[in-house]
Amino acid sequence: MSQQVKALELYRTHNAGELRTKDSGQEVVLSGWVSRRRDLGGVIFIDLRDRSGIVQVVFNPDFSSAELMEQADKLRNEYVVSIRAKVVTRDPSTVNPKIPTGEIEAQALQMEILNTAKNPPFYIQDNVDVDEMVRLKYRYLDLRRPEMQNALILRHKAIQHIRSFLDRNGFLDIETPMLTRSTPEGARDFLVPSRLHPGEFYALPQSPQLFKQLLMVSGFERYYQVARCFRDEDLRADRQPEFTQVDIEMSFMKLEDFHNMLEEMMASLFKETLGVEIPLPFQRMPYKEAMDRYGSDKPDVRFGLELKDVSSIAANCNFKVFKSAIESGGVVKAINAKGCGHYTRKQIDELEEYAKRYGAKGMAWMAFTEEGLKSAISKFFTEEEIESIKQICEVETGDLLLFGADKAKVVADVLGNLRLKLGRDLNLIPEGTFKFLWITEFPLLGYDEEEKRWVAEHHPFTMPMWEDLDKLDSDPGSVRAQAYDMVLNGYEIGGGSMRIFRRDIQEKMFKSLGFSMEEAYEKFGFLLDAFEYGTPPHGGVAFGLDRIIMLMAGRQSIRDTIAFPKTQSGSDPLTQAPSDVSERQLRDLHIRLAEQR
Amino acid sequence: MSQQVKALELYRTHNAGELRTKDSGQEVVLSGWVSRRRDLGGVIFIDLRDRSGIVQVVFNPDFSSAELMEQADKLRNEYVVSIRAKVVTRDPSTVNPKIPTGEIEAQALQMEILNTAKNPPFYIQDNVDVDEMVRLKYRYLDLRRPEMQNALILRHKAIQHIRSFLDRNGFLDIETPMLTRSTPEGARDFLVPSRLHPGEFYALPQSPQLFKQLLMVSGFERYYQVARCFRDEDLRADRQPEFTQVDIEMSFMKLEDFHNMLEEMMASLFKETLGVEIPLPFQRMPYKEAMDRYGSDKPDVRFGLELKDVSSIAANCNFKVFKSAIESGGVVKAINAKGCGHYTRKQIDELEEYAKRYGAKGMAWMAFTEEGLKSAISKFFTEEEIESIKQICEVETGDLLLFGADKAKVVADVLGNLRLKLGRDLNLIPEGTFKFLWITEFPLLGYDEEEKRWVAEHHPFTMPMWEDLDKLDSDPGSVRAQAYDMVLNGYEIGGGSMRIFRRDIQEKMFKSLGFSMEEAYEKFGFLLDAFEYGTPPHGGVAFGLDRIIMLMAGRQSIRDTIAFPKTQSGSDPLTQAPSDVSERQLRDLHIRLAEQR
Repeated sequence: MSQQVKALELYRTHNAGELRTKDSGQEVVLSGWVSRRRDLGGVIFIDLRDRSGIVQVVFNPDFSSAELMEQADKLRNEYVVSIRAKVVTRDPSTVNPKIPTGEIEAQALQMEILNTAKNPPFYIQDNVDVDEMVRLKYRYLDLRRPEMQNALILRHKAIQHIRSFLDRNGFLDIETPMLTRSTPEGARDFLVPSRLHPGEFYALPQSPQLFKQLLMVSGFERYYQVARCFRDEDLRADRQPEFTQVDIEMSFMKLEDFHNMLEEMMASLFKETLGVEIPLPFQRMPYKEAMDRYGSDKPDVRFGLELKDVSSIAANCNFKVFKSAIESGGVVKAINAKGCGHYTRKQIDELEEYAKRYGAKGMAWMAFTEEGLKSAISKFFTEEEIESIKQICEVETGDLLLFGADKAKVVADVLGNLRLKLGRDLNLIPEGTFKFLWITEFPLLGYDEEEKRWVAEHHPFTMPMWEDLDKLDSDPGSVRAQAYDMVLNGYEIGGGSMRIFRRDIQEKMFKSLGFSMEEAYEKFGFLLDAFEYGTPPHGGVAFGLDRIIMLMAGRQSIRDTIAFPKTQSGSDPLTQAPSDVSERQLRDLHIRLAEQR
Repeated sequence: MSQQVKALELYRTHNAGELRTKDSGQEVVLSGWVSRRRDLGGVIFIDLRDRSGIVQVVFNPDFSSAELMEQADKLRNEYVVSIRAKVVTRDPSTVNPKIPTGEIEAQALQMEILNTAKNPPFYIQDNVDVDEMVRLKYRYLDLRRPEMQNALILRHKAIQHIRSFLDRNGFLDIETPMLTRSTPEGARDFLVPSRLHPGEFYALPQSPQLFKQLLMVSGFERYYQVARCFRDEDLRADRQPEFTQVDIEMSFMKLEDFHNMLEEMMASLFKETLGVEIPLPFQRMPYKEAMDRYGSDKPDVRFGLELKDVSSIAANCNFKVFKSAIESGGVVKAINAKGCGHYTRKQIDELEEYAKRYGAKGMAWMAFTEEGLKSAISKFFTEEEIESIKQICEVETGDLLLFGADKAKVVADVLGNLRLKLGRDLNLIPEGTFKFLWITEFPLLGYDEEEKRWVAEHHPFTMPMWEDLDKLDSDPGSVRAQAYDMVLNGYEIGGGSMRIFRRDIQEKMFKSLGFSMEEAYEKFGFLLDAFEYGTPPHGGVAFGLDRIIMLMAGRQSIRDTIAFPKTQSGSDPLTQAPSDVSERQLRDLHIRLAEQR
């Protein structure tokens, strides 16, 4: 037992997956895992896998010693081996076109079994049908699967590209603290009890926002960081308690130049890692237009099916539902489900159910079939009104109109989501295309019905648009912000804003939020202090890296882009974090567990 | 107020610090901070500072409008401005050789005052004599000082270089979790209460050790990460609760090749960022030799003054202190303070006091002066013995020998530290030189007197040296590990080991640590599980980035290499973290504060 594993002089001369016919005749040393083993009448074939891919290794008494054949006989899946072998070109009849090394194979001459392996709980191959909990518990095996390796390799390359792009553009990678101060606004903080300061807590950062603005005050001018951020929110859908943000801030740069630079960054990223051409410049769309046309502030513009406003007709029609929606300040809109005029009642009912999930009370519809208009509500409309609707919605025979009539926000939600569903159902979304756009001119403030006050939609340091500044007092809801999101295929992949850098504007903003300067100092004291000492004009953006990689890799979940993610309940089936800790640890931190209720 | 700051078309055509005589005659736009302002008889000079440096801007009625002169009159230090100006070559008599832009100046043609500034609490210049607490409270101003900017820019460049080196060598940047599981061994964990799992806690990672080994099990083969790590230790000397580690792990690579690669990384880092040539290969020194010769496992080999072993003479001499040290298993060693034979009694007493801080009970000495040997202990030695000591210690007339007689560890500590003090006092340490070496063959285990058992010196997955494996049972204290530190100028800047990857050896190791396999599973369950599924031979290293940058930048504290560091008590005077949090936050996390005692 105490003898050194008699490994070969070196572990590797070549990567298994990179061998080609040009290497024929060469002796190589390979190391990796046994991916598959077959014994065909005394000739043993293994697929040897390393990070670069797979190569077939052959053990054959013709060129392998009896001792080597005996060793090969012991091999099982996932054993770790070093093999000295001769590369030979395969006989044309045995070429395997499915793998890049399929034209050659390696004839084994010597082998060291470096380690054995238990039989894994699932196959190490793509598209395994395994419960995700099992994959997470055995994450170290799940990550051996080529598709997971590729996702993390893509992530590595993407980060590397983004870093070098930003380096070239004069941005400095500066690390900001993880143990920081709990802030009163925003999502829930993760807290960290302090041992040296009894009763006090650090908070893990939700973003480096304050620090990156301080770095601008410090004169670093261009900052970036691939920053881990934390939000203790309920993990609906596809969220993680810790996530990675490409965080950028710059001074002395006009917004337009900044956006152009970021577009170039994205386009070159997609070009270099995926080989995909992204046309520049990106489309820019004001928030209001996005909501009007797509019912979403992160529209998927890979397909049409836009929302059409028929409020002007609805206002005067005899259909009470439409009329009263308009009268109470709402809107009536429609989407034209092209060619769905033949939908059965059942199919339409299903769409209505879907609409109700997003807040619709019901769903009016009109089907324009070969046999004429079919609709339960057509009787409330004049022929002229129907004609106008058809014109607005560009209806052709065979189309189905679906209506939403409610407050603007509800209609947007309902029809925006119906649009996405129809886009998928009707196969309108072209696979493998990437449509970027900027959403601009977001509202600065939103009214919080609970707190009965205006709150910052982005954050309280977001700069209003200059032309709207005067309305901060008179009509806060109409003030647009110098805030923007980058949207890709219906996902918000990044967002940011130009920041308020002048004291007078900041005071006005706090007034709109209903804070006195005293309260503002209470909350943001040190940043406001800092702003007094010569703050440059600045702004920035933060990109959600996990999501970008998910879209690039064509995965369904951000968990597939993170080496060791958490489940929806924030736990890790592998390490079993979080866990109990000792009484002594709690005592050291001056805390106790609350009684269970 | 609501008017847009009428900025120039763009903020900047050139960086202020990069203007040279070749730019003479050109019109430029500059943006930055007013660093200094002088009014010389109606001509106003300012030093305009941006990240690139400083340039002198002149406002003179000869070329500046009356309105512009009026604006210039309002300027104060740290105001933020955009200036359109013409670059002109200075009159030879007014050239300022102290700044790179000193041969030119910029004649102001137009200016926008982008922001005003309060008078800062200290000057924005190098070598300010300001209490560090004030610097940290106004960190955003402290970071404006060129020496701080340069330290962080160097840090950026260094990280960038290390990343690109590792990228080129096939290492993948993979992020590991920050919210992880508390581990029973090692330093104190920072804990994070879980809201969704009442009574349970995450821990912030002390290092990504377990995860990087899991990534090797996963077959990523080469991993790196610039990783934030956390230790809740008392912050003696120059420690931070959060620190940054360049974390590296690799599979299928022989130790020697790995070390060679890391040396190349360091040498190219120093070459490219500092222009310093580091000779390769680095010196390798076994732990035992380092302790013997320098009394330290992180020796500063920029100077000599090595420890000399005179135990063989001491064993037989008549000086009871020496004799009994040897008899009780200790050693007697000396260092030769070259040319210090003339030291006064007072000077020698001071050295003795210093020695006592490190555990010496007293300090014997011999001064070899022109007038002969002066020493309180010389009477206990024969002439022959004195002669032998002189030979061993290479004594010349004028030298002073300082002795340590105690257990080997105490003597090493005492003389090792005396050596460093003398090196400084005698100016033996050449400034601006960088001496790297590897310390190898560390002991695998150390005996914990409190727990009455052997504990892992590095960590329990450290591979013993193959030739010492048999001694794990019979003589655990003598087993050497495949563990290594990289040392630079007396600082440990990195450390690592080859890992145990075979189950049989791991079991042996746990036995030596006094764990049953059950206990081992309790502590390290998931890693041991993982190791069963085909673990490749692997090993790694972690470098302390903060310390490396400190040494490269020639700073005295790692705090000067971190944008927003904590004080010795782990607090941040700027944000005032840690802080109180609300009852509601605690309730959400299912914890309460312990009663104050």
